[in-house]
Order: sequence, then C-alpha cells, then structure tokens
Amino acid sequence: MSLEEAHALATKCLLLNGCDEANARAAADRMIQAEGDLCHSHGLFRLPWYAAGVKSGRANGKAKPRLEQLAPAVIRVDGDGGFAPLGQAIAHQPLVDCARENGIAALAFVNMFHVAAMWPEVEKLALDGLCAFAFTPSYPYVAPAGGIKPVFGTNPMGFAWPRADAPPMVFDQSAATMARGEIQIAARDGRSVPDNVGIGPDGEATTDPNVVLAGAQLSFGGYKGASLAMMVELLAGAMIGEFLSIESIQDDAGEGGPPKGGELILALDPARFGDPSGFLAHGEKLFEAILAQEGTRLPGARRFENREKSAESGIDIPQSLHESILDLM
Amino acid sequence: MSLEEAHALATKCLLLNGCDEANARAAADRMIQAEGDLCHSHGLFRLPWYAAGVKSGRANGKAKPRLEQLAPAVIRVDGDGGFAPLGQAIAHQPLVDCARENGIAALAFVNMFHVAAMWPEVEKLALDGLCAFAFTPSYPYVAPAGGIKPVFGTNPMGFAWPRADAPPMVFDQSAATMARGEIQIAARDGRSVPDNVGIGPDGEATTDPNVVLAGAQLSFGGYKGASLAMMVELLAGAMIGEFLSIESIQDDAGEGGPPKGGELILALDPARFGDPSGFLAHGEKLFEAILAQEGTRLPGARRFENREKSAESGIDIPQSLHESILDLM
Repeated sequence: MSLEEAHALATKCLLLNGCDEANARAAADRMIQAEGDLCHSHGLFRLPWYAAGVKSGRANGKAKPRLEQLAPAVIRVDGDGGFAPLGQAIAHQPLVDCARENGIAALAFVNMFHVAAMWPEVEKLALDGLCAFAFTPSYPYVAPAGGIKPVFGTNPMGFAWPRADAPPMVFDQSAATMARGEIQIAARDGRSVPDNVGIGPDGEATTDPNVVLAGAQLSFGGYKGASLAMMVELLAGAMIGEFLSIESIQDDAGEGGPPKGGELILALDPARFGDPSGFLAHGEKLFEAILAQEGTRLPGARRFENREKSAESGIDIPQSLHESILDLM
Repeated sequence: MSLEEAHALATKCLLLNGCDEANARAAADRMIQAEGDLCHSHGLFRLPWYAAGVKSGRANGKAKPRLEQLAPAVIRVDGDGGFAPLGQAIAHQPLVDCARENGIAALAFVNMFHVAAMWPEVEKLALDGLCAFAFTPSYPYVAPAGGIKPVFGTNPMGFAWPRADAPPMVFDQSAATMARGEIQIAARDGRSVPDNVGIGPDGEATTDPNVVLAGAQLSFGGYKGASLAMMVELLAGAMIGEFLSIESIQDDAGEGGPPKGGELILALDPARFGDPSGFLAHGEKLFEAILAQEGTRLPGARRFENREKSAESGIDIPQSLHESILDLM
C-alpha cells in the first residue's frame, strides 16, 4: 500500500465513523506518519481505537479546539473532547511564536483523547529551530516502585533537538520498559516478552504478554523510570487540571476506548539562551563524539531512514488489520 | 558531630583554602544539607574537591556571580568562575519571580564549578510553590547506547513538586545506574558494585568499582537512560553555551578538580496552568494511590526523615575523611 492509499483509507474510515474532515485528516496524518516511520504500534493499528472512540459517542469527531493564553508564556488548548492531532496542529504556530518571544513557553492540552505517539509534535517544533519536551499520561498500566498494582500510565516523554543539516534528534520513550502497543502486538502475534516488561496480577514474574496486560507493566531502570512516570502524571495531569491515569480509566468506564486527558509541551528557543550562533554546531560536536564509537546511533535516526524508504516503496500492513479496518467501513 | 560543628568545619576549611566568607558559607550550606540528609556522597566527602579546586587556582573562591535577563522568561547567571552554591542562592528569588510572572521560566548557569547535588535547588523552588527541573552535565563517565567509551556525564536530572502539608516530592537521579560518588565510596571501602553499574576500559563486564572508574559507567534502563544523559548535555551544555562533559574534562587538564560548566533550571508555576485551586490536592490524590500499596514510598521521603533525625542527633563521618579534611587546614 502506498502512503497516499493508507492515508485515504484511514481518512475514509474515520469519516464513516463520525469524524468531520478536519479531525479525520489530522488523525490520519499522525497514523500514516507513524506507519511511514515503521512504528506500527502507532500506525493504522490505532485506527480501530479512534473509530471506537467516536462511535461510542465518547470522543467528539467534530471537535473544534480552542486556544487560550493563561500567562505570558503559557498557552492552553481545550480539545473540545476530540482527538489530539487536530488540537496539536492548531497550537503549533502559536507555541512557536510564544517560545521565540519569551525564550521558553508551555502548552497545556486539556479535554482531548490521546492515541498517537508524541515524536511528531516535538520533531515539528525542532524543525522550527526549537528544543522541545512533551509529556502525557494514559491509563494506569505501570506499577509504582515497590508496588505491584498499576497506577501510572506508560507516560512517554518526548524530546527533540534541532540540527542544521540533518533531521532533528528526537526521542519519545515510554516510562515503561516496553511500550504498551508493542506488548499488545506481541500478544496478537503469540510471542513472549522479556521478563523485565511486567508482572502478573499478583506481582508474579511472567513473560506472557497477556498476563502482563492483565497485571502491571514495569518501569524502565527500576525506581528511576517510576519517578519519571510520576513526574508525567504531575505535569500533564495534576498541574494542568486534567486526568491522572487512574482518573482517565474511570472516565472510560470499561469501554476500552482511547484515554482522555492532558498533554504538556515545553518549547525552548535555544537562540535565546546566550549562544545563538553556536548552539547548533555545539550539539553536532556531541553527536560526533557519540557516532565516532562503533555500534552507536542517534535516537530517532532509524525512523528517518524508514521514512525515506516508505515514501518510495510504501508500507505493508497485516491482512488481519486490513480486514478489521474494512469491517469498520 | 553536630550539624553546626560540621558546618563550621567545612566553612573554616574553605576559608583557609582561599574562599571568601560568602562562597565558603554557600558551599558549606550545601554539603551540610547533604550530610544531614545522609547523602554522604554529596556531603563532606566533597570538601577536598572544593578545596583542591580553589587551591589550584582553577576555581574562584571569591566569585561574585552576575545575573542577566536574556529573554522575558530566561535568566542567566555567570558564576564568575566560582562554585555553584553562591550563584544558586543569588538566583533563587529572581527565578521565582520570573516563573510567577510568565508561568514558566528558565535559569541558565554558566562559568561555574559543580560539586553538589541538585535536589536542594529544586526543593527550594517547590517550597515556594513551584514545580522545577534541574539538569547538569559533569565529566565524561557514561558510555552512549551501543558504545563502550565515556561521552556523557552522570548527568543528573532533578525534579520537585510542591505539597501543601508535607515536604515537596523531590527526586534527583543520575542518568547512570549508580551515582559516581557512590562508586567512589565503594572503591574506597573495598566493596564490589552490581554488574549493571559499568564496564571496563575495553567494554568488559566487571563488578570492581576501580575498573568501572577507569572504564565507563552504564546508563540506567539501557538506551533510555542514555537518551536522558544526551538530553542533559544538550540542554545544560550546547544550548546555554557551556561545556559538554567531554569539553569540561579537557578544561580540567588532568588536575582532577571539580567539573566546570553549566546548569539549567526550569521553573513552572502550577498556579498559572489553569487549575490554581486544585493542583495541590490533585497531586495528593496521585501520592495516595501510590502509598496505598505496600512497599512503596515517595522519592525524597527518606531524605526528609533523615534530616529530622540528623538535626537532633548529629552526623557521623569516617575517621579517614575527618583526617583528610584536617590535613587541608
């Protein structure tokens, strides 16, 4: 399937399930970018989740996100109960302008559903020359340090740094050892997962993805990853007046739809931090020191390689996924 | 030794080694707070390092840090070649004011030496009701993902969140599996370290702290911790026009003094993010969900317990450390 065909399929499916044109396109953009980057767990794999969210009436497929300035360097976007991508698209330029003016700015998204990865947003900010962070909670999947029951979301943290003659350095990493989407794909494909991925409902060790999905995921690096997961709940939940992961799951009330809640983006303009003519070359000096060692690569580099290939040769999706999408249409 | 006696000892030692009163007191404050929190690796253990830095003429014991506004929400403090604690003390209130006015603010420290932990700074900001991050590189100790030679510092990231009726939630965690100070203490005491702490000079596995100190430390959680270490180099090195860890070690030129370089602090005023009357209680809801599980505790909680005990009963320091301090006087 070419990327254009995949985009048309996703858009059509969302339109048929209750989205308007603007919301369908923005969500399709995100999914197809992920497919093109060969990050399948954030690609069309998520389409049934988007469709179910709108169909059940929980998510607003015709959302009109509203932007508001809360403080000189703080913007809030109310997503009007829709999916994140449209709000993110609308908020991008105001955030860029606010960060350039103040040196640093924050963007809080509230009242929206989160299905997508965050690297596209921070990457886009870095393409405009900014350095950016993104945080979002989800549903309670990850146990706190010392505990066995899920409290935190997988709570990714995205980060991007601009480069002059190369795509931005971008990472988007879950506070869990493995992204939930990857565990779900392992379960779908009947594969086991490493023993540090999660525990069963009574805290027992397991490599069965289905047992992990019923129990709790583990944070990466033990208590340090759990601290990061907690930080994300505080920043993109408590601070901005949006759901913690434990609240989002109650709001869902067992429907199994996408998580509703918040997201926080921080954008810094490196040109306002004292070395406007030097910071890009300075970053490259670090990257050169890393890449001088055999076996290293920069975070995100593989995604950009995949993207180039996909643009030429298109993408493959599993027959079963294609069928489940067609079933929705 | 009481905390007052320890503080007097540290101050006197620094004065005798070339610090003025203001610089000696600020550095002693930091070391004694760490001792009182029973974080010995950031306590008096660091005093010989401070003293050596001034004695060699590399660090300015009589530094007069200067504050400058780079953008509406960005402050820079030039440490005048001295140690971080005095600059941090001077910059605290301007950062608080700037964050309250703009909702978010950044503080870049340049031209200073870093010996201390960062939790005191973010804790202090949280005591003023702010949410805060801190980042600083050091010397190249940690290998990049896939590599075996050190490029990154241990690159701690500090984070604090305010609480109404309890000390702030604070973590300050190295991007390495183990803080370098702890490895040095293990080496001093002849203890081995876990096998995920580091590798030898040729990439070989080891549990010998001396071999790790000669080789490379490993990042926590594999490539994810390495991403965080890289992020710290970019934020508190490249972005603010200060040394990367690989540059700081060259500046030291084999003297073995404290690392010179930068630090970045981000301060957010949660009251400007849309839920001024709710965010504190909302954070507590998360903490309650965590603490409801047996075996859990909040990051930083042990430090506050230790602090209460130390204030009453004083602290113990090893005879060998006491002697090496007296040798400096």
